[in-house]
Amino acid sequence: MPQVQLYDTTLRDGAQQEGISFSVADKLKIAKRLDELGMHFIEGGWPGANPKDTEFFIKAHDLNFKHSVLVAFGSTKHPDSKVDKDANLRALVEARAKVVTIVGKSWGLQVTQILEISLEDNLSIISESVGYLKSKGLTVFFDAEHFFDGYKANPDYALQTIEAASKSGADCVVLCDTNGGALPSEVATAIEAVRRATAVPLGIHAHNDAELAVANSLTAVQAGVVQVQGTINGYGERCGNANLCSIIPALKLKLGIDCISDEQLAKLTEVSHYVDELANLAPASHLPYVGASAFSHKAGLHVSGLMKWEESYQHINPELVGNRPKVVVSELSGKGNIIYKARELGVALPPKGKQARQILEQIKLLESRGFQYEGADASFELLLHRAQPEYKPPFELIDFMVLVERHRRLPAHGSESELLSEATVKVKIGDRVIHTAAEGNGPVNALDQALRKALLEFYPDLTEVELVDYKVRILEESAGTASQVRVLIESSNGQEQWRTVGSSTNIIEASWLALADSMEYWLMRQRETGKVI
Amino acid sequence: MPQVQLYDTTLRDGAQQEGISFSVADKLKIAKRLDELGMHFIEGGWPGANPKDTEFFIKAHDLNFKHSVLVAFGSTKHPDSKVDKDANLRALVEARAKVVTIVGKSWGLQVTQILEISLEDNLSIISESVGYLKSKGLTVFFDAEHFFDGYKANPDYALQTIEAASKSGADCVVLCDTNGGALPSEVATAIEAVRRATAVPLGIHAHNDAELAVANSLTAVQAGVVQVQGTINGYGERCGNANLCSIIPALKLKLGIDCISDEQLAKLTEVSHYVDELANLAPASHLPYVGASAFSHKAGLHVSGLMKWEESYQHINPELVGNRPKVVVSELSGKGNIIYKARELGVALPPKGKQARQILEQIKLLESRGFQYEGADASFELLLHRAQPEYKPPFELIDFMVLVERHRRLPAHGSESELLSEATVKVKIGDRVIHTAAEGNGPVNALDQALRKALLEFYPDLTEVELVDYKVRILEESAGTASQVRVLIESSNGQEQWRTVGSSTNIIEASWLALADSMEYWLMRQRETGKVI
Repeated sequence: MPQVQLYDTTLRDGAQQEGISFSVADKLKIAKRLDELGMHFIEGGWPGANPKDTEFFIKAHDLNFKHSVLVAFGSTKHPDSKVDKDANLRALVEARAKVVTIVGKSWGLQVTQILEISLEDNLSIISESVGYLKSKGLTVFFDAEHFFDGYKANPDYALQTIEAASKSGADCVVLCDTNGGALPSEVATAIEAVRRATAVPLGIHAHNDAELAVANSLTAVQAGVVQVQGTINGYGERCGNANLCSIIPALKLKLGIDCISDEQLAKLTEVSHYVDELANLAPASHLPYVGASAFSHKAGLHVSGLMKWEESYQHINPELVGNRPKVVVSELSGKGNIIYKARELGVALPPKGKQARQILEQIKLLESRGFQYEGADASFELLLHRAQPEYKPPFELIDFMVLVERHRRLPAHGSESELLSEATVKVKIGDRVIHTAAEGNGPVNALDQALRKALLEFYPDLTEVELVDYKVRILEESAGTASQVRVLIESSNGQEQWRTVGSSTNIIEASWLALADSMEYWLMRQRETGKVI
Repeated sequence: MPQVQLYDTTLRDGAQQEGISFSVADKLKIAKRLDELGMHFIEGGWPGANPKDTEFFIKAHDLNFKHSVLVAFGSTKHPDSKVDKDANLRALVEARAKVVTIVGKSWGLQVTQILEISLEDNLSIISESVGYLKSKGLTVFFDAEHFFDGYKANPDYALQTIEAASKSGADCVVLCDTNGGALPSEVATAIEAVRRATAVPLGIHAHNDAELAVANSLTAVQAGVVQVQGTINGYGERCGNANLCSIIPALKLKLGIDCISDEQLAKLTEVSHYVDELANLAPASHLPYVGASAFSHKAGLHVSGLMKWEESYQHINPELVGNRPKVVVSELSGKGNIIYKARELGVALPPKGKQARQILEQIKLLESRGFQYEGADASFELLLHRAQPEYKPPFELIDFMVLVERHRRLPAHGSESELLSEATVKVKIGDRVIHTAAEGNGPVNALDQALRKALLEFYPDLTEVELVDYKVRILEESAGTASQVRVLIESSNGQEQWRTVGSSTNIIEASWLALADSMEYWLMRQRETGKVI
């Protein structure tokens, strides 16, 4: 098998998925990870189409990719504009990416019915657009939109569009299954015909509307294409794009195509989850290769099989993609987990004693009230410490109050309204009760500021602690505004990160509990190192 | 193409999915729907393996299927037991299903390493088990476990297991990709070899561990199998089983195999959502064919195409599977989306005028501030109405205030603390300014109560409006507690649901905006029907 180039379009076509809206900062972070994963091309967006994408291309030049090449996406020129005056093509050139991909039409009916121009004019548009970009010294990929539908309807014309791009210098022609309805057998037949007609390197861009995007991409590789376009986790409009997290391991582990290194492949699960996090999507547990359940085994036949022979019920070794097997554990083994976890954290629990069982009962009770410790290691560690009779908390929460008020400004100040968020807190440190107040940018920020203010007098090093992430999840969603709310907070002192959890039907109280845990955890750690008493 | 039989294993293999636990009543309800959908075989479970499944088979006989045949599942006999004394085989006979499916091993390594018996003994076990069940007058399907892995490792032995089942009278031999790792090309090659070796009718049972289960099932049909096993929505252990909701429409609409009637196919989306409901899973919106987003259109290009020609950006007509197209409005939209959507909502926008462009600009501005209209149709409709010069809002927000306070109770009341959430609102209705207050279960609930109280005097029917869902999303997560927050609210009047959005750096203000939109939307709809002025 020849080498295959991976082309990621998570930041452009993936971002079309309903509910996904990446900020420029998100896109830059994701691009960095994709580079580390060894993606050959990263499509950053459509410069000129929206201000966010233009800004991304300005900033992306500072990323200094190690492996990847940045690609700007756009379309062929507008039928009415001259090629050197076309706003879209100019924006592509101005994006200063070395590679540009332009999409053009390969389905005759799309040309006459949607573009409403003649088939000949469409061929000229393709030739002129590719030629113009080539004349600017760029590497040019041509996305042949609706190629497979076009090939079924009118094979001659579909091939002419490929030929037009190829003769004008396109470096790769990417065959797109834009509506996502092609079958693998149709993909194989059409690609064979293209390869007979032209020598230009080919790529595949598949959508998942028939749940066949991964199969169509792999079939295309087996039929001779050298570029595969797709997205992390299969993000994309409607049913998504071809999922690179399933394609990459299949290429490497099943077809023997060394598209990325073993070390890079071992980062796949991590990258998948990272991108989900920035997209604010809970990672889908059933995703092939990277899902938390991808290598899960229920008790019984499979588990005893697995113990005898690792590969008996696994199609690959999960470690190769950075995942791991998961044996669904019974409630009895829960105590073992607590002891194991406590040992990991350096808290000694007597293995025979009642303590581990008591902690397990407490966790079950708290989890039934909406707490969850899987994502909140620091709160879990505090819980272990609080179970020790000698533990003394660095502070005690007494009361808090939060006030959010919106007032219309006086007419002299315009019609904008003013928003005030203020919090008061009462905490006990040693024998002293501190009662103080602060304003903030929103109620939780105000609480954060007030609690810090109260503690800073005693623990001045607390200034180094920062909140870096704040997540809210609504449990029992059907209960409307009276639902149970879980808040997860991530904090940092510049070197380390820790996560805490709070839960309540009141979002302010849930936040307050997670905030307080965050500070208590840091103070407890300081105390262990002798920095505070 | 020959006829293909559909074999549903949602109730057995599908129920292995983590988190799914069907009651007997659920299973009976689902079986009834599967019968209406025209499934040829419905596998009800493993009688004898657990009491629920035994009970199901007792009750299932009263279902009086119109189209389907009930199937009982089990395994070949235990190596140590005599075939006519084997508990598992006897439970199969006692289930009184006319068809039984038994699973046996086709991979040599599984036989020697997991069963720990000789290859010859395994062949006898298969022959004896199939022969015994045939002697009881049953139709017998043989599931050849790990067939494709076995064929790769030792093709001769894998074929011998098929031959053992076939010679003993098996009515169909089902080739299983138990670990879900086979490629379509491997499936095609192996099936060709089996067909050269034996004339027994073949089936396919694929798992989705490489995201190829649908492709492998369709490839198998093209290679000549006559039975396809799968589950509704692709339920199943790990990454799931082959998804019948994607396979059935592909067979019927793409391969021209008339496995169910047109009327039955039109129930597919409904059945998919119904089964999700009984499994207590939110229907996945991106599912091919049946997902709410399967025919959604967000990109401006696509929507303007859709308006000219319905099939331009859809691989099938969604009505054929009981689904429908959905146009999504977002910052990536063009003017076309706005006009199309406005028309759907019954708001006339002049297609050539500036209004659609102005609304689009406003949406882009609001989206850059964190609003998002994809999931908030009602807020979008309000935005359209507010752009009309003659629109008069039913009320105007002036100010609000929210107070959340936690006070320790007096010692006499125990050490528990008390939480108070209170809101005041000031709204203008006509010439009157209403200033009122309410308590609630959390700050947003308090705001909701206060706003209702203010409006109820003028709009008493508002009591029928209920908040049914409240979602919070944090944007720009790295900014900690000062992040931008988006709130999505779903409301209902018992018959209809509508969704509204609010965004702010302050969660209370974001909630307030979404709440106010919810009520304004309902009042606007009431006004349109003449119920309020």
